Amino acid sequence: MFIEPVLIAGAWRASESTGTFQSTNPATGEVLQARYPISSWADCEAALDAAEKAFAILRTMSGDAIATFLETYATKIEQRAEELVVMANQETALPLKPRLADGELPRTTGQLRLAAAAARSQSWRQATIDSAAGIRSCFAPIGPVAVFGPNNFPFAFGSISGGDFAAAIAAGNPVIAKANSSHPGTTRIFAEAAQEAATETGMPAGTVQLLYRTSHSIGEQLVTDERLGATGYTGSREAGLVLKRAADAAGKPIYLELSSINPVVFLPGSLAERSDELAEEFVSSCLMGTGQFCTNPGLLLLLDGETTENFITDITRRFDAAPAGTLLSPAVEKSLHASHHTLTEAGAAILCGTGPAAHGGCCSVKNTLLRCSADSFLRDSETMQTEAFGNSSLIVTVADLDQAAAVIAALEGNLTGVIYSAKDGSDDAAYRRLEPILRQKVGRLLNDKMPTGVAVSSAMNHGGPYPSTGHPGFTAVGIPASIHRFTALHCYDNVRSDRLPEILRDDYAGSAQRLIDGVWR
Amino acid sequence: MFIEPVLIAGAWRASESTGTFQSTNPATGEVLQARYPISSWADCEAALDAAEKAFAILRTMSGDAIATFLETYATKIEQRAEELVVMANQETALPLKPRLADGELPRTTGQLRLAAAAARSQSWRQATIDSAAGIRSCFAPIGPVAVFGPNNFPFAFGSISGGDFAAAIAAGNPVIAKANSSHPGTTRIFAEAAQEAATETGMPAGTVQLLYRTSHSIGEQLVTDERLGATGYTGSREAGLVLKRAADAAGKPIYLELSSINPVVFLPGSLAERSDELAEEFVSSCLMGTGQFCTNPGLLLLLDGETTENFITDITRRFDAAPAGTLLSPAVEKSLHASHHTLTEAGAAILCGTGPAAHGGCCSVKNTLLRCSADSFLRDSETMQTEAFGNSSLIVTVADLDQAAAVIAALEGNLTGVIYSAKDGSDDAAYRRLEPILRQKVGRLLNDKMPTGVAVSSAMNHGGPYPSTGHPGFTAVGIPASIHRFTALHCYDNVRSDRLPEILRDDYAGSAQRLIDGVWR
Repeated sequence: MFIEPVLIAGAWRASESTGTFQSTNPATGEVLQARYPISSWADCEAALDAAEKAFAILRTMSGDAIATFLETYATKIEQRAEELVVMANQETALPLKPRLADGELPRTTGQLRLAAAAARSQSWRQATIDSAAGIRSCFAPIGPVAVFGPNNFPFAFGSISGGDFAAAIAAGNPVIAKANSSHPGTTRIFAEAAQEAATETGMPAGTVQLLYRTSHSIGEQLVTDERLGATGYTGSREAGLVLKRAADAAGKPIYLELSSINPVVFLPGSLAERSDELAEEFVSSCLMGTGQFCTNPGLLLLLDGETTENFITDITRRFDAAPAGTLLSPAVEKSLHASHHTLTEAGAAILCGTGPAAHGGCCSVKNTLLRCSADSFLRDSETMQTEAFGNSSLIVTVADLDQAAAVIAALEGNLTGVIYSAKDGSDDAAYRRLEPILRQKVGRLLNDKMPTGVAVSSAMNHGGPYPSTGHPGFTAVGIPASIHRFTALHCYDNVRSDRLPEILRDDYAGSAQRLIDGVWR
Repeated sequence: MFIEPVLIAGAWRASESTGTFQSTNPATGEVLQARYPISSWADCEAALDAAEKAFAILRTMSGDAIATFLETYATKIEQRAEELVVMANQETALPLKPRLADGELPRTTGQLRLAAAAARSQSWRQATIDSAAGIRSCFAPIGPVAVFGPNNFPFAFGSISGGDFAAAIAAGNPVIAKANSSHPGTTRIFAEAAQEAATETGMPAGTVQLLYRTSHSIGEQLVTDERLGATGYTGSREAGLVLKRAADAAGKPIYLELSSINPVVFLPGSLAERSDELAEEFVSSCLMGTGQFCTNPGLLLLLDGETTENFITDITRRFDAAPAGTLLSPAVEKSLHASHHTLTEAGAAILCGTGPAAHGGCCSVKNTLLRCSADSFLRDSETMQTEAFGNSSLIVTVADLDQAAAVIAALEGNLTGVIYSAKDGSDDAAYRRLEPILRQKVGRLLNDKMPTGVAVSSAMNHGGPYPSTGHPGFTAVGIPASIHRFTALHCYDNVRSDRLPEILRDDYAGSAQRLIDGVWR
């Protein structure tokens, strides 16, 4: 039985595995042939050792060298685009086109090239010089980074291709990627391309490494290892919190994207003004990618009234009429059913959906709308905020602004929050009442726009208060801010110029902005 | 029996206490008369409630208003300087002059005024605008901050006067201060001045609040409370880690300064070149403030040889000859004895000191130098890194650079690390060998300079890898960087200009730098 090798220290080698796993085509239910190893600690040990050695070299390499690697890698991804999208489609059921080929793939290579530009410019270092005191500081790479990628973006958030990978490498950190078990084949192709690029561009062995899977306890051991600098994790809240607990206890930074229900408030005036338009926007955002975006609107807040009832009837009809997409894996299907069970047990009524979809793929659940009152929501707001990851949303109707404020105040931290208001100003007082409460609960506040698009922008915040992430000060998307997660602050006091990193020297000739004696130059 | 009141919601009120405590004059052993309450949860609850209400107002106030408060407070501190230094001297035995009156007090008011300037300029917000995407972001206050101050800097790191306080307030966060039990009277005077300033400048009630002490379990409850934004803690590693565990589990950011032994390496050439000078520098840095600086050099690394032996003889003589200062409290004295016991049990030899000092104050231990070999150090490096907080240092002698590298590689994270090298370049190869290892272990790397001075500079890093702090990316000293600990990243997507914070608007007229469409302006 052939077991796929792992990538350690620059070479593909047989894993010292404790078992194997296979992925499933969620559209057909077919178990895919390739067998991937579940790594023992021996694999982690070898990877950590190689990463430590790579880091000693990598952290002294120029930003140009790192940029060249990232750009070469981006080109290699484009050369293997066809293979990648076919494999990812097979493993995730995400549409070949436009989603994978025209959306996620160019986004991924674009991110890598933006990271390359940041590595080249070194602007993320925030060099600060106090000439009189003889003190200089800048951000520096934090050390080898373990990246655990999610199931829902096999390219753009992939453990060896996505935003965490790009940010970690840009700062000069080696990456130990842990593939998502639902798309190991896709991750393998990326890793092959990454290693080829690393070899061609003279990066140290161990700059990019790939393990497919470990037990939970070995994963915990990995994120606490002394040789590791930090961890980036995107995935389920449950598994993420296990890693967080372990990393926290060891004093190791861990950046998490865990869960988010992304509340959307339609104020009455907006509904009265453009009900049809809002229904269209809401439904298409909810069902996009079968509802499996991190920023999928999972909670809709509406004020009681006839317009609201008509609107609910309308969106229910649209949910019913739209074809149910295929979910990413049998695990996602199972978890969605479980969430529906939890929510209905807690008192949510089913407006449509919840059962297996008749004409969807193998892993498919009917488009689902649930509904509850503010009282019902507030009675057990924690349970009512159970994430139903997939093509599903919960509508909460409230009697008045006081109740709306109470529901928003009871929300956990989220990545995004949205308020739609009337163009004629009739909702402005309500906006002023609710916005300050919602603002504190979310990383990105939107107006009159669905949250599902996460632009790759330096102004983006793809982050938010716990438990949407582990820390409200960091973003996973948006360079250079996302790079800061994988850095440490290095200060030099009374150190001779020739012993300083280039960016802190008096004769620095690069283009990065530096704060010199209080003035940015 | 009169029990000092606590400051909650803008008023001094009787504590709902579970007991009382008194502080001790460490110079005389005299228990001071004033009784301070140990607060029950009811006090915390009231303080959190008031802080939440204050935050709703504070976060919308202008930077100018916050700056005026901080500046008024600084002036009031100066007006009560005499009273403050007398009380602090009584509670901590730190010298009235120059230490308290001419050193720490002006540093404290200087920090408050620097924080005021940062609040006024709003430069800490790092406003970023992407015009094409309609996305804007900036840092914003994180919410009420609990500050636990240390025993060793009753002014400059005080819970209601020090760097954490100034940084939290500058960003627009209310502070709930928890006094250090060794100097409650000093903290009370600060809190009175702070509240007077808050009232005079129209700050909301609950902007500054003071509790004196809680049980450990109530402290844990405080740092995990939903209404709290974050915690700043400076103190013992043991108590800090208890709070960290609680805060981490609740997903609440906590910034910790825990412990540091601040390794110093004297390379052979430097010793050969200027042995006398180095002995003088080392001894005065070690014994400054009776060795109770966070950055006190607690570990000295020397290469075997005759020069080293002569040097050790010299510094031992100097330690013996210098008067032993008074420690901050009976608890510090006890802990120092315990550390000496731990270190000698682990194999360190006593060169001088360890007993009670004959002519010191009541809480006084002889100036102590311990010594061990690299082998002995490496046999149980964790124990050998036990912090001996006070007038004490451990010398580790190593046979060669390989051993030096091994000892440095075994170090935990520290605030600072120092390498002294010869001016004639004879140590340069050794420097290049050891620096990359030491660099990863410390926040601030110094050359040819003792670490005890922590300049208030924007380039300062008073932070470092775990367990010196909880996260290697943040500093507790140095504005504006220290402010970032108490902020969250707020993104606005498609939000009308009049609904944006002032700093993100198109018509912003202030002076803060903004990154607009990729260019700093």
